Amino acid sequence: MTDPLPRAQTPFDDDSLHEECGVFGIYGHSDSAAHTVLGLHALQHRGQEAAGVVSYDGQRFHSQRCLGLVGDNLTSEDVISGLPGDSAIGHNRYSTTGDTVLRNVQPLFAELSGGGFAIAHNGNITNALTLRRDLIRKGAIFQSTSDTEVIIHLVALSRKPRLVDRLVDALLQVQGAYSLVILTQKKMIAVRDPMGVRPLVLGELDGGVPLLASETCAFDIIGAKFVREIEPGEMVVFTEEGTETLHPFLPVKPRPCIFEHVYFSRPDSQSNGTSMYEIRKRIGRELAMESGVDADMVIPVPDSGTPAAIGYSQASGVPFELGIIRNHYVGRTFIEPTDSIRHLGVRLKHNANRAEIKGKKVVLVDDSIVRGTTSIKIVEMVRAAGASEVHMRIASPPTTNPCFYGVDTPEREKLLAARMEHTEMAKLIGVDSLAYLTIDGLYRAVGEHGRNEVPQYCDACFSGDYPTGLEDQEGGRQSQLSLLTEA
Amino acid sequence: MTDPLPRAQTPFDDDSLHEECGVFGIYGHSDSAAHTVLGLHALQHRGQEAAGVVSYDGQRFHSQRCLGLVGDNLTSEDVISGLPGDSAIGHNRYSTTGDTVLRNVQPLFAELSGGGFAIAHNGNITNALTLRRDLIRKGAIFQSTSDTEVIIHLVALSRKPRLVDRLVDALLQVQGAYSLVILTQKKMIAVRDPMGVRPLVLGELDGGVPLLASETCAFDIIGAKFVREIEPGEMVVFTEEGTETLHPFLPVKPRPCIFEHVYFSRPDSQSNGTSMYEIRKRIGRELAMESGVDADMVIPVPDSGTPAAIGYSQASGVPFELGIIRNHYVGRTFIEPTDSIRHLGVRLKHNANRAEIKGKKVVLVDDSIVRGTTSIKIVEMVRAAGASEVHMRIASPPTTNPCFYGVDTPEREKLLAARMEHTEMAKLIGVDSLAYLTIDGLYRAVGEHGRNEVPQYCDACFSGDYPTGLEDQEGGRQSQLSLLTEA
Amino acid sequence: MTDPLPRAQTPFDDDSLHEECGVFGIYGHSDSAAHTVLGLHALQHRGQEAAGVVSYDGQRFHSQRCLGLVGDNLTSEDVISGLPGDSAIGHNRYSTTGDTVLRNVQPLFAELSGGGFAIAHNGNITNALTLRRDLIRKGAIFQSTSDTEVIIHLVALSRKPRLVDRLVDALLQVQGAYSLVILTQKKMIAVRDPMGVRPLVLGELDGGVPLLASETCAFDIIGAKFVREIEPGEMVVFTEEGTETLHPFLPVKPRPCIFEHVYFSRPDSQSNGTSMYEIRKRIGRELAMESGVDADMVIPVPDSGTPAAIGYSQASGVPFELGIIRNHYVGRTFIEPTDSIRHLGVRLKHNANRAEIKGKKVVLVDDSIVRGTTSIKIVEMVRAAGASEVHMRIASPPTTNPCFYGVDTPEREKLLAARMEHTEMAKLIGVDSLAYLTIDGLYRAVGEHGRNEVPQYCDACFSGDYPTGLEDQEGGRQSQLSLLTEA
Amino acid sequence: MTDPLPRAQTPFDDDSLHEECGVFGIYGHSDSAAHTVLGLHALQHRGQEAAGVVSYDGQRFHSQRCLGLVGDNLTSEDVISGLPGDSAIGHNRYSTTGDTVLRNVQPLFAELSGGGFAIAHNGNITNALTLRRDLIRKGAIFQSTSDTEVIIHLVALSRKPRLVDRLVDALLQVQGAYSLVILTQKKMIAVRDPMGVRPLVLGELDGGVPLLASETCAFDIIGAKFVREIEPGEMVVFTEEGTETLHPFLPVKPRPCIFEHVYFSRPDSQSNGTSMYEIRKRIGRELAMESGVDADMVIPVPDSGTPAAIGYSQASGVPFELGIIRNHYVGRTFIEPTDSIRHLGVRLKHNANRAEIKGKKVVLVDDSIVRGTTSIKIVEMVRAAGASEVHMRIASPPTTNPCFYGVDTPEREKLLAARMEHTEMAKLIGVDSLAYLTIDGLYRAVGEHGRNEVPQYCDACFSGDYPTGLEDQEGGRQSQLSLLTEA
Repeated sequence: MTDPLPRAQTPFDDDSLHEECGVFGIYGHSDSAAHTVLGLHALQHRGQEAAGVVSYDGQRFHSQRCLGLVGDNLTSEDVISGLPGDSAIGHNRYSTTGDTVLRNVQPLFAELSGGGFAIAHNGNITNALTLRRDLIRKGAIFQSTSDTEVIIHLVALSRKPRLVDRLVDALLQVQGAYSLVILTQKKMIAVRDPMGVRPLVLGELDGGVPLLASETCAFDIIGAKFVREIEPGEMVVFTEEGTETLHPFLPVKPRPCIFEHVYFSRPDSQSNGTSMYEIRKRIGRELAMESGVDADMVIPVPDSGTPAAIGYSQASGVPFELGIIRNHYVGRTFIEPTDSIRHLGVRLKHNANRAEIKGKKVVLVDDSIVRGTTSIKIVEMVRAAGASEVHMRIASPPTTNPCFYGVDTPEREKLLAARMEHTEMAKLIGVDSLAYLTIDGLYRAVGEHGRNEVPQYCDACFSGDYPTGLEDQEGGRQSQLSLLTEA
Repeated sequence: MTDPLPRAQTPFDDDSLHEECGVFGIYGHSDSAAHTVLGLHALQHRGQEAAGVVSYDGQRFHSQRCLGLVGDNLTSEDVISGLPGDSAIGHNRYSTTGDTVLRNVQPLFAELSGGGFAIAHNGNITNALTLRRDLIRKGAIFQSTSDTEVIIHLVALSRKPRLVDRLVDALLQVQGAYSLVILTQKKMIAVRDPMGVRPLVLGELDGGVPLLASETCAFDIIGAKFVREIEPGEMVVFTEEGTETLHPFLPVKPRPCIFEHVYFSRPDSQSNGTSMYEIRKRIGRELAMESGVDADMVIPVPDSGTPAAIGYSQASGVPFELGIIRNHYVGRTFIEPTDSIRHLGVRLKHNANRAEIKGKKVVLVDDSIVRGTTSIKIVEMVRAAGASEVHMRIASPPTTNPCFYGVDTPEREKLLAARMEHTEMAKLIGVDSLAYLTIDGLYRAVGEHGRNEVPQYCDACFSGDYPTGLEDQEGGRQSQLSLLTEA
Repeated sequence: MTDPLPRAQTPFDDDSLHEECGVFGIYGHSDSAAHTVLGLHALQHRGQEAAGVVSYDGQRFHSQRCLGLVGDNLTSEDVISGLPGDSAIGHNRYSTTGDTVLRNVQPLFAELSGGGFAIAHNGNITNALTLRRDLIRKGAIFQSTSDTEVIIHLVALSRKPRLVDRLVDALLQVQGAYSLVILTQKKMIAVRDPMGVRPLVLGELDGGVPLLASETCAFDIIGAKFVREIEPGEMVVFTEEGTETLHPFLPVKPRPCIFEHVYFSRPDSQSNGTSMYEIRKRIGRELAMESGVDADMVIPVPDSGTPAAIGYSQASGVPFELGIIRNHYVGRTFIEPTDSIRHLGVRLKHNANRAEIKGKKVVLVDDSIVRGTTSIKIVEMVRAAGASEVHMRIASPPTTNPCFYGVDTPEREKLLAARMEHTEMAKLIGVDSLAYLTIDGLYRAVGEHGRNEVPQYCDACFSGDYPTGLEDQEGGRQSQLSLLTEA
Repeated sequence: MTDPLPRAQTPFDDDSLHEECGVFGIYGHSDSAAHTVLGLHALQHRGQEAAGVVSYDGQRFHSQRCLGLVGDNLTSEDVISGLPGDSAIGHNRYSTTGDTVLRNVQPLFAELSGGGFAIAHNGNITNALTLRRDLIRKGAIFQSTSDTEVIIHLVALSRKPRLVDRLVDALLQVQGAYSLVILTQKKMIAVRDPMGVRPLVLGELDGGVPLLASETCAFDIIGAKFVREIEPGEMVVFTEEGTETLHPFLPVKPRPCIFEHVYFSRPDSQSNGTSMYEIRKRIGRELAMESGVDADMVIPVPDSGTPAAIGYSQASGVPFELGIIRNHYVGRTFIEPTDSIRHLGVRLKHNANRAEIKGKKVVLVDDSIVRGTTSIKIVEMVRAAGASEVHMRIASPPTTNPCFYGVDTPEREKLLAARMEHTEMAKLIGVDSLAYLTIDGLYRAVGEHGRNEVPQYCDACFSGDYPTGLEDQEGGRQSQLSLLTEA
């Protein structure tokens, strides 16, 4: 889900893309809350701003939500014992900070005529504003500024008799990307949008307890088994009686997000039996083959460039070295640093391993370039440490278009590769050579022969080829969603 | 308004009745927020648990809400500057503590199809549960557990074209007591229920700026003029073009709450040109005439018994003395005191002035007896200090019935006067004599000849004669309003 | 004790004098911590900025200290159970706010060669700076900026063998006012300076458990018996073996603070069998006799003027009326109020009872005038409410000199009565007449025939006649005590 | 420095050794506070529990201290502007949590007769208790329970005329390890104990501004130059007039800590022109040569095992793979986790990359084994992910003895290698083979030919050969240092 309000500035120029959510669900286990909290902790990389869990104990729903990390807020006895019951769903969120945002923290909950309804959403509804305006006209009162809330109101107003039908009724009006985990008094429901843009996987615990999660790493932490992916366009309903699978949407060609493989998903999460780590090593290998260069060492930009750098090293024989050291104590909390401190942005996170680099020809491997600001500083730091040549290799094609499906991207005009030619970029960044992975190289790394006419993935951030309508997205994100400013 | 969820226990047995709200509004003044905050501070005795202000600046609404006292939370530059605009309304609330309750703090706000709508409510909707269930059935999603929110949904769903008509439409479905102050993009609206159970007064600042408040003392603090009462059943609409008065309800005999005169309203607030202080002195005088007794001194139970004790003293010639000293540092914050401390409940607040009392015949004057627990301890303390005779005089008739109109009263079975005969009570409390004011004495003190067949006031707490339907009240307060438990 | 660092500004002009401490001690009771906390709560009026308790359990000392009120911070099970042991002493402090000040909160504790030593001090050491400089020269390292700490260092450095002798050794070097309660591993010790400027009383609980307190009201709250005053210059040592009384100082004429009777002590505290309330009523009576005036009512300035106003009313026959109503919800926490709110200073605390006052001749009774700022605003408010004549009567002589014995007074130049003649004052304040009590009237009220050549009390604030040396006081309070500024 | 009080339990079994401090100093730079804060941030790995800075502005000292990370607490404009002046020193601390510990947070400050004195200490005084008892006997009053405070008192009591002589006087009485940075009104002083157990380096900023730090990485972050090490037994005094070097101690053979090379120092810090990263790769190479094994991949235990694993891979040709993925969001704040969560300790931090490991023979490389608890769980996790063989290689000799020089080590009985034979250990840990680096191998990796009779390093943790007296250490850490328990 997405909060369409303007986002608070982070203190430093954090020049990377941010996944905006992780979801989790468990149905029928006596320790459902602890398992959900652990699942959310494993999915923390998908959203670090807030988290929440809703459980159901057969009589009442219980909710615990927080701003901040799961491990800082939701693991205590107090919280877990405040979430009784055999079923629970949870959500990690990437978004703005501030007190009032608590009302936007998911799972959202509403009491509908049929009973309670809790929902956790990864993705973004691209026609949320239009739907919201229409719902208000009909008398709906919104309690958040989240796009996810329109789904609840559409369900509440549906005149279909059964909840599942009301949900389908609602989703047929909705455009965009969504992987949903829903909890009601009788059911847990999983839904993935027709193109399956965002991931959603099914797991199993203790021989029979069904689990849902954004990635398989959430199953590993609790010792659970990965069963299969929820398919694009599939709706799975879990009840005490058993599991029912529906395909309520017209079939379309799936287009899962390819950037999950490049960067978002954890390296230890799997897709089709292969780890993301392995795919990223293959990306590094493709990169070495496409644009190898004579060098003394290959250095990852920590930590996201590491698997591709290992692949590059293994394919090229150039030694893999930790030429840049990460400071693990950079929190997200350099609040209002002074100018003299802000000025040192990159050095607060990284330091060149100067005794190692001095006089050497180095290849830097990074996952992507967004605005380019971090790359400039990294290269400057590596040069200041005495590197004789600096070559930059990027483990993805040029990022030229914003994502409207649940990833926080700057506007097109701020994307370096959208506003500059290749030679200009290399010059700006200050490298002796710069090379991106080709789009075909990327498709090869994920196991295809190359990109087709009608591609197997959503690669809109590289290609501009958006698989859905974007009704409220062109400039729409900035529009004023609520008349109320709260403190 | 009332939060029908179970109330948190206060650490000590605070054996008095609690008014549940104060409201304030100002329309068309450049410093509207500061004036509202001051008005709420003056009305703080009507609700100390939470407070909020909503302002409108011509483009957006702004809200600041807090748990705790106005003076502790809303007076800073930060808060006031977060409330720009020429119009503002505010609310004081008496209710439970805890974080999540913030969503119940008024003014409530919603974005309706016609624009923003903020509402502050003093009173209680007696058919709120029935209306709520019906609204949920129609697809409404509630964001609070406050009875006040039903009004907003009824307005949102009304199909009348003009906002004022939608509001009337809504209120015609509502039963109970309400003094409302509403703010929209164009208007401030005042409404008082047909019987005018709770007070609402109109004031004027700086030659023309209209003000609304629960009591006149809120005008004094900002140097404003009291104009008149909003009449029972009256709706007054303030716009830039001027003021319009409507009487949308069928006329009924007004029944304002008589207990406002006995206890709730501040002594310096006025009604019909007389201060509450004066009325309470008259009550003391009636008491002296009805049940005078030979004594050395008359002692108020601080602080609410003081005006009646002064009246008693002036009428009887028995000297008024501070025989019980109040500790001004008893906050509402003896959180989880140890047993040895809890045990001293009354002494934490009061101490007998033992050098004064020793060997004396004393008359204690208190405003009312609810459960009787405090009275027992006060008398015990006065006796331990050496008083030779203790006579208790109560400045109101026996409280035998709960209030359903916005006052926090224990259930009938817990009211001392409902479960015991007079002599038993005197014995239990431990006094040499006990006398209550008669109901006719009370009516005389407020300026009538006595109570009529169809009385001029709501005196249900004394008489059991409730002026409205009580659809959801018999046992209804305890019923479960929300399926969600939050932390 | 006094913290000689500059004091934080209170948000409003709080124009009264502030007592700077209360002390309490109990020796040999299984629930010593709870009793101490209750005693401190009863003495809260003597210091509201911070409080602390130290207990001893036979093996270790335990300390709990807080900024803020006793009832807000020290009454919970957590705190009380953190103070095990049969002996405890406590302290209330009036001082600056802020985190670091915690190191100044008493009881101060040090580990001396003979064992632990905890001390609570009411008063002010007038040669503290000189002693401090000398001690640093000898190698002492100070941990606070409190004058009280010099006593500890003097004890630590004394070469006498027994602790009691070391304490006497220390106190013989000390100038000024002190009532001390000290706890060591074997003893509780009470000391009062030779003139007995600040009070200290002895009580008894449950037939034999000795208690110490600044005032008798601290005994009432726990149901204890007042035994006698600790005499000026007396040192009482409580051990398991019994009680020993010493008189280690050269005898001088006692000079207890007369302002304790006028204002500081609680009205229900006693001195020589008379309550402070009674003495203040006598002051009111003297005032009525010295400077009675024709009027419709006598109005106390709440709350400190009330007993004198009652006395004035009883002596003069002019009715006592609550013409000014106090808002009980003015905390000490109007933090950084906006200008428009600050501007209303007095009205936030008080409101004229306008229906009562209008057209009437009123006598206002207040305890004292310090800077005069509050008096001006009170009179202005009373006039605005329509009083036809306003007469001000002050229950003490003109305050013309600062106190250096533990009371927070402005510098001489800021005291209204020190910088203005009587008629000027009356004009400035805006009254039709102004009268102070004479110094002889005050002495009569406390039971003397008038003030002697060598007076029975310290009345330096009225007379400038300081009973001790003032080595470091002339301008000394402002001098920089510590080289360190901490946050 | 060391706080000898019992340490709070961390929620999970964090089975590694903890360096206990980092120090920093800068003399004569207009932005001294920001530089100090940045230096402390770079040294954060040396102590994460608390941090502090003291600056001097020519007139007063200023202090800012916090519990928690530098980047969370000390980087804001507020803090930096609260530290004016051209000189500053700072300190990172590893210790217990809790409020009261703030008084132990360094730099400690005292006002001595010659003026202010601030001190930051890395190391541990091994005869602190004896000195403390002796000082108390002489009348000293301690304000902390830190061993460092004895140095201040010894300086305060020295009768030498010049501060530098008083400091030498003090240090001659002190036993153990210390790298000190001291700030007075005129001077910054660096001292390293005669054996130079803990590191201390000299740097230079902007052509002439002297810097001090525990490691060179603190110079990199601010773009400063490394000049040289402060030598064991050297005292360097920086004044406005220039720099003076003293060697006040009898010369002894230096014994710097060898474990700094294995684990404590950051990989990008240098010693003798070589990075710690390079030394650790050499350790990995020695390990491969000493105990290579046939395997499919070498996997670092993140993150400390990574450099040695790279060295092992490069020397052996076995591919380096990320077979264990670290969760970067494990804070130090899993406060009171439930049993079901605590139970998953290791999995909260790490996950086996199961698609990579399955069916493979793996070599795990870790820096050391302390209690062994983590190793057991890591191996269990790797086996559960399907590894066919698991070989453990440790980048240091067996840890058999506690450190008394400023490193937090468990008691001897809890060290796995001290209580078990090699085969037993391998069995307990569950590996197919286990090998430690030999002590000679370690000396070779740091550039020696092997360990001498009189070794060049302190390797007491491996050899039990302690280079100093240990007067108060045998059981002494547990002894009760203060009579006071505070909350």
